[in-house]
Amino acid sequence: MKKVEDYIKTIPDYPQPGIMFRDITTVVQDPDGLKLAIDEMQRQLEGIDFDVVVGAESRGFVFGMPIAYNMHKGFVMVRKKGKLPRETIEQSYDLEYGQATVEMHKDSIKPGQKVVIVDDLIATGGTIEAIVKMVESLGGEVVHISFLLELAGLNGREKLKGYDVSSVVSYEGK
Amino acid sequence: MKKVEDYIKTIPDYPQPGIMFRDITTVVQDPDGLKLAIDEMQRQLEGIDFDVVVGAESRGFVFGMPIAYNMHKGFVMVRKKGKLPRETIEQSYDLEYGQATVEMHKDSIKPGQKVVIVDDLIATGGTIEAIVKMVESLGGEVVHISFLLELAGLNGREKLKGYDVSSVVSYEGK
Repeated sequence: MKKVEDYIKTIPDYPQPGIMFRDITTVVQDPDGLKLAIDEMQRQLEGIDFDVVVGAESRGFVFGMPIAYNMHKGFVMVRKKGKLPRETIEQSYDLEYGQATVEMHKDSIKPGQKVVIVDDLIATGGTIEAIVKMVESLGGEVVHISFLLELAGLNGREKLKGYDVSSVVSYEGK
Repeated sequence: MKKVEDYIKTIPDYPQPGIMFRDITTVVQDPDGLKLAIDEMQRQLEGIDFDVVVGAESRGFVFGMPIAYNMHKGFVMVRKKGKLPRETIEQSYDLEYGQATVEMHKDSIKPGQKVVIVDDLIATGGTIEAIVKMVESLGGEVVHISFLLELAGLNGREKLKGYDVSSVVSYEGK
């Protein structure tokens, strides 16, 4: 039986020399790959009590929405600054060069709600750390963080210490 | 029973005076709103034979992925130029001011495949027209185009004449 990693395409030296890019478009463009990826992520959520799924633009939408639908939860969209129309909170985080800022609506999480954060990939963990801060500033409790892929060599889990984190496929390198 | 439109938040004069912005984040952040929106879009696909769902970054991902999962199809991501790692085709289209360019992977559609395009909203139809051109240039057949919302006053369907188009909620104005 095929595994999720069998559907992932690795592209050497993209976007720059020395980087092994893990492409998930080949997972989701295959009906069986897509189903397997979502089912495996959901399996890691078994037994976890939660109210809402949070995902960041745009690959967090890809994996977060089917899970929210299947488990009958709400889905909260984290977007790049300036794209959400109502009152928002924002959080900046460091990139390799410069900074980025993400936002979510103030009314998207109610105090006391249990939150699962979903993304395609954990690398250095900067984006997810920013999302955790926003969720908690709205009074939400992050009960699980679910990734399809993990680049273990980048130590993103260090930034998420104390949180319940899972990934379906882990790569040793960067 | 609540309808999809009951979950939509209308924001007057956003992003500029005279525009009534239809916000779908309030649909998906509610578990029942999310389920209803996806179920209604899927209902419009009943009886249509197709192979793959295509959606554009980033709200096309939100609605396209659950439908692809539920119907056991592949999902093809259309992204803004420069974000897809493998060999792509691209298509530019006009915005109110200037142009935008979208891309998809060359191997994402096989000749003869039947394609359903999914997006949150049809306004002037420019993005969707660009996606249709790319799908057809790869040999795919667009068998249906499904929107959650339609701004009928902007005549986006004119650009999609000859195609099978549906929307769940239609607003008369712009």
